[in-house]
Formats: sequence, C-alpha cells, structure tokens
Amino acid sequence: MADPLRRLSFNQATINKWDALEAIEACARHGVGWVSLWREPVAKDGLAACAKALKETGVRVSSLCRGGFFPAATSHERAERLDENRRAIDECAELGTDVLVLVCGGLPEGSRDLDGAREMVRDGVAALVPYAGERGVKLGVEPLHPMFAADRNVISTLALANDIALGLASPQVGVVIDVFHVWWDPAVYREIRRAADVTLGFHVNDWLVDPPSVLHSRAMMGDGPIELRRLRRAVDMAGYDGPIEVEIFNRDVWAMDPDAVMTTIKERFVSEVM
Amino acid sequence: MADPLRRLSFNQATINKWDALEAIEACARHGVGWVSLWREPVAKDGLAACAKALKETGVRVSSLCRGGFFPAATSHERAERLDENRRAIDECAELGTDVLVLVCGGLPEGSRDLDGAREMVRDGVAALVPYAGERGVKLGVEPLHPMFAADRNVISTLALANDIALGLASPQVGVVIDVFHVWWDPAVYREIRRAADVTLGFHVNDWLVDPPSVLHSRAMMGDGPIELRRLRRAVDMAGYDGPIEVEIFNRDVWAMDPDAVMTTIKERFVSEVM
Repeated sequence: MADPLRRLSFNQATINKWDALEAIEACARHGVGWVSLWREPVAKDGLAACAKALKETGVRVSSLCRGGFFPAATSHERAERLDENRRAIDECAELGTDVLVLVCGGLPEGSRDLDGAREMVRDGVAALVPYAGERGVKLGVEPLHPMFAADRNVISTLALANDIALGLASPQVGVVIDVFHVWWDPAVYREIRRAADVTLGFHVNDWLVDPPSVLHSRAMMGDGPIELRRLRRAVDMAGYDGPIEVEIFNRDVWAMDPDAVMTTIKERFVSEVM
Repeated sequence: MADPLRRLSFNQATINKWDALEAIEACARHGVGWVSLWREPVAKDGLAACAKALKETGVRVSSLCRGGFFPAATSHERAERLDENRRAIDECAELGTDVLVLVCGGLPEGSRDLDGAREMVRDGVAALVPYAGERGVKLGVEPLHPMFAADRNVISTLALANDIALGLASPQVGVVIDVFHVWWDPAVYREIRRAADVTLGFHVNDWLVDPPSVLHSRAMMGDGPIELRRLRRAVDMAGYDGPIEVEIFNRDVWAMDPDAVMTTIKERFVSEVM
C-alpha cells in the first residue's frame, strides 16, 4: 500500500510562527514531502535562500500563494495588478513550483458591478497566459466562499472557476479546490467532475461553526462538518493525483506548539482525508 | 405615480429595542403599512394583544419569522420540530398573515450528511403542507447564505429552495428571497425567474464587509455592494408585487435611536430599492 502521507502538503499559513525557511525545514524533519509557500515570507527570507533550502531538503513546492486580485477601477491599476502577477509567476519558476494560486479579487472600491468584476477576472487570467506559458507556470483559479465575494474574490463557486478555466482552454489555466470554500455547494460533485482535466490543487481543512471572524473560520480536519473523504475521493475519481494541501487559518492552531500541530496534521490527514 | 413606500414592510428584528406592540405602533406612526413579526416577541406581548393592535392600526403582517429547523438526529425530534411548525402556522392564521418564513435548519449535531439534511428539509416541508392548507398559510422556504449551511440552514441557494417549492408543486409552498443571502450567486437572476410563480417574499438590506460576527453582517440599504435595485426589478419582472421587507441585523443600527432608523429605512427604501 502506498504511503498515505505521500500526497500531504503543508501550507505554511497553517503555522504562522514559522518563516519560510523554518517551514521548509520542518517539512523535511516531519517527513512531509510537499510545502506550499506564501510570497511575503519567501521574500523576507529571500527567494534564492528558499530555493536553496528546497534543493537541499528535497521538499517540493506544491503551490505558491498567491496571485490574483484582478478587478480594479482603472485600466492603469489593472495593468499594475498584472505586473504583480508576472512577478509572482517568476517566483514560482524560481521555487520550482508549477502552480500559482489565484485569489481573484473582490469588487473594486465602491463598485456594485459583480458581473463586471467577474469579467475583469477572466480578462486578467487570459492576459497572464502567455507569460505563464513562457515560464512553465500554471494559474490556479481558486473559488472562495461566497462570504468573501465583496472584498476578496468574486469567483464564489467552482462553477465560475471552471467557466474561466474551461473557457480559456489553455494548458496554463486550471482550478484549485479548497473544501472550505465549496463544501456547501449542491453542485460541488458535478463541478469536481467538470474540473477533471483542469484541477491543479486540492486543499483540506474543516469548517468552524461560529468563528471569531470570517477570516479565521477554519478548523483542523475532522473538527467540523465537511465530508472530507467523500470530497477527496471525488477529486481523485476525476483523475487528480497531485499533492493535497492542508491550509488552516485558525487562531487556536496558531497558538499551539508548531511541531504538535504538524503531528496532528499528519494524523488527521490519514484518519479524515485519505 | 404609486406611493414608493406602498410595499415597504418593517421587519421588527431591525430594531431590537421595540417589542412587538411597539413595532406595530411605530409602523402606524411612520406610515409604514406592513410589518414582519417574530414569534418570540409576539408571544411575550401576547398573540391576542398583537392581533388586536394590528386590527386597530390597520398595519398588515407580511410574514411571521420563523418556522423551519427540520433536520434532527431522530424521528422523534423531527416530529417535535413539525409540531412546533404547526404552532407557528396557527400563529400566522391568528395574526392574519399568509406567510410563515422557514429557516430550514443546519446539520443535526455531529452529522456530516449534508445531502441527508437537505432531504429532511424537503420531507419536513412536505409534511406541513396539509396543515398549512387548512389554515390558509403558505410556507416560505428562505435560502440562507452558504456561511450558515452548517448550523442554521442547509438550503444555501435559491436553486435549492426552488427545487423544494417547484418539486412539491403545492400552492402552500414557495420561496422567500433575501438579497443578503443570494446576491453573490451567479445563478441568482435565472433562479429569480424560475421562482416566478412561487415567490412569497422579498427582503432587502445590504452586505457588511468585515463584520463583527457572521450573525451581524448586514448593513442598511445602500451601505454595501449589493445591486439592490437590479435585484428588486428582477423580482418584480418575474411577477412579484407583494411587500418588501427591510430586515437588518446590525449592532450599530440596534444602538441608534429607533425612530431615526425608521426614517432612514424609508429614505433608503426609496433611494436604493424602488
């Protein structure tokens, strides 16, 4: 039987006490073969230093978080956002990951034009395709929970993300599926099948009832109501065999001993996900 | 030109300093022809006293909040929930409103069976139909925002609510559309048209970015990103001509002078909704 931890990827946002180098080193120490890094901590430790640590430890990067944030009031601002995304694509190439996670952005300040913002997202992703292709990086459109539609991501359902990825029909564009964002959706299993050829990532965690804030409403796998194994099996059945990221934003988890969190992640990954 | 306030209904949850009798009296004083009442404050003031105040003032009740909460772990508990709904139906008849708003309930304690809970909702609504028909009361299935799927309402989209109402095909069952819960949905305009023959109510308010809690994340009309007028027109175009409830759960609004809130509601109803 294959190692049940083979596909586990640790998203560094889950433990905010570690910088990027510490997260890479911790993955190596805990026998976790994949890590997902964030741009800001990578920049702090230095891109070259992170790339070196990855090479030395053999830990691979499942994705870089994050690009996106396409909608803006003016074409000048939208062009700036694209430039920022191109820098993120360069960083992916340097770190040796082929997936840039896109959190696509909310409504422009003061705007109520949700349809227009969704068009800006599609246009923004399309504009990045040639550059991503040159660098060998894929753009993963991640739908975010509808509670983030106004301020973080107008792509609120997997159906909308699939529409973009399947509509652009480029090998450079796909979707990233996070259970937290899609578990409630009556169309989720249909859309997972529809995403069969474009799924670039799968994220697990759980839903926290009555959270301290909407940004910190994720729980450890198994502590909430999400049918994790059913969703994981559906994504697998559709043909995805890549890394599975554990990404939790939770104040209690952040307050815990980081190595204890890593141990729990590994246990719960086996007992709740695989 | 018709009075633009003709369809305004004041949902008493918007001002929590008033009891039911005060809310009724305030509607009369402010020239608001409709009120939406909640069961608990009505019980506190007495059902007969409220019915009397309504008759004396001429204020009509657009809906009673709320029935529902169908999913439960055991058939005994589910039967108890149905009995509670029958009492709510009786209260509707006594107050002279033909709409009982249903907040359908979250997952049973410890359950992860979202599909099963959605079936329990459909079965629960179906079980109430004969009793509702005898009392001349309609059951309004209200989809709640997906962020309430776990603990309050597994009916997370207007599509799911329409599936129940159109599937049961009873004159006793319809849907209630609240902009707060559905505005993010890429299918909302399609589903509003689909709900043409079953729309029993329409609620307005706005979305509050970065709320103090998920339960208090509504704003005054015009203070958020929701395309209120577009949604109202879509509901009207589909044939709905009934009262439009203003329902806001917001700590800042609750802290304000109630009569000032009523004045703002009337102003914003005209400037943002009609």
